[in-house]
Amino acid sequence: MDYERFLSSEARRFTHASLAGLVHRFSGVEGVISLAGGLPPPEAFPLSCLAATTRDGLQLSLGEEGQQAYLAQQYNFNPQGYGPLLEWLRDLSVQQHGIAVPGKEPSAASLPGPPPGPQRDVVLASGAIHAIFAAISCLTDPGDTLVVDEYTYTHALECVFLPRGLRLLPVRGDEQGMDPEHLEEQLRAAEEAAEAGSSGGDVGPVRRPRLLYCIPTGHNPTGAVMGEQRKRDILRALYAARADSAHRAASEHLSGLAEWRPVRAGMFMWLQLTGVPDVSAILDDLVAAKVVVVPGSMFATTGLPVGGPHLRLSFAGATPEVLAEGLRRLAEATRAVVARREGAEGAQCG
Amino acid sequence: MDYERFLSSEARRFTHASLAGLVHRFSGVEGVISLAGGLPPPEAFPLSCLAATTRDGLQLSLGEEGQQAYLAQQYNFNPQGYGPLLEWLRDLSVQQHGIAVPGKEPSAASLPGPPPGPQRDVVLASGAIHAIFAAISCLTDPGDTLVVDEYTYTHALECVFLPRGLRLLPVRGDEQGMDPEHLEEQLRAAEEAAEAGSSGGDVGPVRRPRLLYCIPTGHNPTGAVMGEQRKRDILRALYAARADSAHRAASEHLSGLAEWRPVRAGMFMWLQLTGVPDVSAILDDLVAAKVVVVPGSMFATTGLPVGGPHLRLSFAGATPEVLAEGLRRLAEATRAVVARREGAEGAQCG
Repeated sequence: MDYERFLSSEARRFTHASLAGLVHRFSGVEGVISLAGGLPPPEAFPLSCLAATTRDGLQLSLGEEGQQAYLAQQYNFNPQGYGPLLEWLRDLSVQQHGIAVPGKEPSAASLPGPPPGPQRDVVLASGAIHAIFAAISCLTDPGDTLVVDEYTYTHALECVFLPRGLRLLPVRGDEQGMDPEHLEEQLRAAEEAAEAGSSGGDVGPVRRPRLLYCIPTGHNPTGAVMGEQRKRDILRALYAARADSAHRAASEHLSGLAEWRPVRAGMFMWLQLTGVPDVSAILDDLVAAKVVVVPGSMFATTGLPVGGPHLRLSFAGATPEVLAEGLRRLAEATRAVVARREGAEGAQCG
Repeated sequence: MDYERFLSSEARRFTHASLAGLVHRFSGVEGVISLAGGLPPPEAFPLSCLAATTRDGLQLSLGEEGQQAYLAQQYNFNPQGYGPLLEWLRDLSVQQHGIAVPGKEPSAASLPGPPPGPQRDVVLASGAIHAIFAAISCLTDPGDTLVVDEYTYTHALECVFLPRGLRLLPVRGDEQGMDPEHLEEQLRAAEEAAEAGSSGGDVGPVRRPRLLYCIPTGHNPTGAVMGEQRKRDILRALYAARADSAHRAASEHLSGLAEWRPVRAGMFMWLQLTGVPDVSAILDDLVAAKVVVVPGSMFATTGLPVGGPHLRLSFAGATPEVLAEGLRRLAEATRAVVARREGAEGAQCG
């Protein structure tokens, strides 16, 4: 999946840290003399030993052996955080959550978790607000709409969402948190306000919701805990809003060219072109029109090739604007194919 | 001085942390039962003792006495940072820099420093980039122009200035850092580009410089150290650009109504109204026109009241836009006073 398109303008402007990258290129090179980074020498740090006693009596200490005390005080050049702590957290993530991170595979006995992704990893933050701030900064632009619980974590609200200039779309909740029916209502209302170009307040025109923030376990302040079914219902509500907008866009662009049923669940619309007997035969036209859909024949269990007028289009990954443009192109290509077929038939008859 | 007007849109949207404020209202109240904050109990924290040995052999330890180990692990409710560390840093600031912070007065023997201000205080940050990020976020909006050294701290550049979407105005330097003459040139060029409404790239139209970032001592990467005279020269260059723009604005609005010499230094222009013999006599007109300047008579050493056609206007605190609007109002009020005087004289004559 292309995650790039979810990034905020700010996140897109981030570059790879060039100095950290340079230092990394030489890391592990035997006998290298580094005159690159601004690392103070060991004798510049005040502590020679750091020690702690745990509540159950375990003694921990970082001393001069392996330069542990020095390294704990030295600058860290990895923007993700201190290497040994990251390594420890990757192990913890595999053990406790069954979530694989780079170089760490969950064991067969671990808990079920999302599939490993090449970009999944641990990043250190200076506390909850720093982590929420970083995520919100990377995923929203000022003026964007954020779906939130009607009551939510006060510090995230006051220190992150409001200063960022986000428009909040609040959803009522119960003992399981966010109510999927009210979510669907609010999404529809926001969609209509965005389509109508509503101005609404000091953060600019209303935009379609960009992100949802919720606290699924041990909600602050309500204590709600979201069950697995509730999570599925919320995802369904999010898709329902998108399916709804896909249906409206198809009505605008494909009326007279295709037939379909409104989508009730999932990420796909299944359409039947009325003037094209075999969608797989017009793929070149779709390439020329720069729009990709999947011919229905690719899902057929009746043996290939079957042809047929069906196609599947996915509305899960496209913004409403992109979806509308895709449907416009599909309509244009379909009209051209139909006109060509009619011309050919006319020529045959004549 | 009103610092509010230097704040970014983001900083203006910050509110006082309401939960922290609530907790603060009850702090020190004897016997209060707090059911407010989300503070985990002491037994939730893993360490019972934290200890360190300094390089010169001093033993430090935070144990169960005074709940020191617990408090060091507990959440901190003060957005400025951990109270005892703040207190220690305020003392350090007075001792090392002679800079007073709330409740701490510099001793007579301390180094000279800027005068104490009611809003001057210490705030903790998680390192240099966090501190620079916070300051830049509070003082610039995306698209703003930032004056910088031609070569500057790479992490500030890559992690803060560029992701924030700032337009950089680079100034050449020498062994004392920023060159005041090139600074003046660059400020003039930026002023002209902003006046011409230049579009210039992906961060929107060119805006007048909003902030200057430099590293006065031990510059990274050049090692430059700025002497006191260089600092003064840089301040003078900044005022020169402003004085220049004040002179241009006065030429536009006050030609024929007043006389003045171009300003060479300082924060003020000294003007002489050609049709008004006593500026102090038209203060009501200025109040009605909503513009404040200071009658020259207030600076007269020849004994009061003296009247006279002089006035002082300050261009140090006003943006070029505000200054232009102020001069427009001053011109309008002056024209009205002159017309009234001429009418009265006409009536006397006729």
